[in-house]
Amino acid sequence: MTHPRIGITMGDPAGVGPEICLRLLVEESVTSRCVPIVFGDVGVLNRVAECCSLPAPQKIIRSDEPVAASRSVEVPTVINISGIDADVVQPGVVNHLTGAASYRYIESAISAAMTGAVSGVVTGPIHKEAIHAAGVSFPGHTELFAAHTKASRTCMMLTSSELTCSFVTGHVGLRDVPGLLSSERIMEVIELTDDVMSQLLGRQPKLAVCGLNPHAGEQGLFGDREEQLVIIPAVKAARDRGIQIIGPLSADTAFLPRNRCATDAYICMYHDQGLIPLKALAFDTAVNVTLGLPIVRTSVDHGTALDIAWQGQASAKSMLEAVRLAVRLSHET
Amino acid sequence: MTHPRIGITMGDPAGVGPEICLRLLVEESVTSRCVPIVFGDVGVLNRVAECCSLPAPQKIIRSDEPVAASRSVEVPTVINISGIDADVVQPGVVNHLTGAASYRYIESAISAAMTGAVSGVVTGPIHKEAIHAAGVSFPGHTELFAAHTKASRTCMMLTSSELTCSFVTGHVGLRDVPGLLSSERIMEVIELTDDVMSQLLGRQPKLAVCGLNPHAGEQGLFGDREEQLVIIPAVKAARDRGIQIIGPLSADTAFLPRNRCATDAYICMYHDQGLIPLKALAFDTAVNVTLGLPIVRTSVDHGTALDIAWQGQASAKSMLEAVRLAVRLSHET
Repeated sequence: MTHPRIGITMGDPAGVGPEICLRLLVEESVTSRCVPIVFGDVGVLNRVAECCSLPAPQKIIRSDEPVAASRSVEVPTVINISGIDADVVQPGVVNHLTGAASYRYIESAISAAMTGAVSGVVTGPIHKEAIHAAGVSFPGHTELFAAHTKASRTCMMLTSSELTCSFVTGHVGLRDVPGLLSSERIMEVIELTDDVMSQLLGRQPKLAVCGLNPHAGEQGLFGDREEQLVIIPAVKAARDRGIQIIGPLSADTAFLPRNRCATDAYICMYHDQGLIPLKALAFDTAVNVTLGLPIVRTSVDHGTALDIAWQGQASAKSMLEAVRLAVRLSHET
Repeated sequence: MTHPRIGITMGDPAGVGPEICLRLLVEESVTSRCVPIVFGDVGVLNRVAECCSLPAPQKIIRSDEPVAASRSVEVPTVINISGIDADVVQPGVVNHLTGAASYRYIESAISAAMTGAVSGVVTGPIHKEAIHAAGVSFPGHTELFAAHTKASRTCMMLTSSELTCSFVTGHVGLRDVPGLLSSERIMEVIELTDDVMSQLLGRQPKLAVCGLNPHAGEQGLFGDREEQLVIIPAVKAARDRGIQIIGPLSADTAFLPRNRCATDAYICMYHDQGLIPLKALAFDTAVNVTLGLPIVRTSVDHGTALDIAWQGQASAKSMLEAVRLAVRLSHET
């Protein structure tokens, strides 16, 4: 079995992404499983290597056709996208230029995956404000990948050995969450989660759905009966299709140790409902994966960490986990 | 120094409250610090004692004037409220009768505290549906205590050695949360939290405020700029008054271990924002305290646990912590 080629986007040049990519290119646990191909800027990587006393990238491909170039790569490589002039980047300072560059890395990596040049994409951390300043209107990676791959049913999932959560809504204001819930959408997320967890576990997974309101609405006392009207019908429909699922659970007790033991993945109604326990319990090791795409896509679970950018302090743990998961999923799809 | 008398409500007769009260009446760590006075039904307690092989209550006062009766108590005692006929109670089955009874225990205990007959009240777990079925319209203990003591500025706080959170909104639908936020309300919760934490710690506390939206709105990208318009002005006003406070923090990273170390108490915008990490990290030991009341009031952090009612399996840990905190607060007010 040949090692799969995994595209890795460098993330925002001013964040911790470049440092993490440098660590990854020389990490034995990565190179023994796959051929990592960083989509980024070699000028930035060289500067960061110096700042952090890390080895500079060895194999570099400068090409106007990054997708074609990545097709034949067989060793850890940087595909130079020329997204930004390295000299204008200040560590920890994001702007429309760093945002535009990080967007270009993603576009190239998606194209490479869509043509089969790489088996999956692992994304480094981007800065949403910088992306927006560059005129890109996607609220996050998940939405960007869905649009670029023309996927109609997608959702974000975060997974770690402690806890796995899928999300019915993502990067939207809390105010907008109740209006975005529907039985169809919840069912979609349940099915996507059931599919991927079956694949990863090799058996039928045990799923649990969280309620929206405090105490899952306490039988309709809090909220607008979203549990009764929207969530419970989705759970019933899922059960009718043979999916092993419980809920809606009160979100505050759903993540107690005894419940975590009995649950392979949680379906969460909104971002912080799942992200709060995930980060509290498994900060460094959680991996973000987009379900429902025609390509494999995983990501680090942290942001650009601008306060420690280019200082040699960034942990590559989450990125290593993300690469590992991308390799597993690319073997299994 | 004489031991303070602490009123303890029995909670819903069909839940784990009676068992926990029985354990508490004979618990040396309780009786060495205070005189526990259970406001409940002796008939229920006797039945539960038999079911759970626990000692039946020794000193019982049957009185039509429970408040007056509690004034002279000097040993662990049950004040018999005659809230319900013990024979009609089925373990684990709540209804309007059990709800009405649990409400009567609370009313009596509040009256006892307001007249100074007891130094504070610790509440056992009630069942909100049962309370509602009894025609009582309060969404929770906190609101009920506020109304009965005519307190105008109150909030719920949960505290444990791991984590302490105060809440700007409480038992309301998630949909209603954004509309209930105002700088004034947030400031109120900050001040109440600063007061009680100063009292408990004997020094100025370090507070942190959570944002409402994912990533605290990411500079206004998600949500309706609630962070900019409502939360940040409150934080600034608090700082102007000399309160040591940071935020708004992204809720998903606010509770990381390194942030928890640097924070004495969090100000949370909604129920599950603080309750999810609290229960995940400190299930058995968190105590609920109502700030801003003219009386001391603490509570267990768990519900009626109907599935294990009257079975001898209930842990009294959270209730013991609640009593300990009530004793500390009653000494210090």
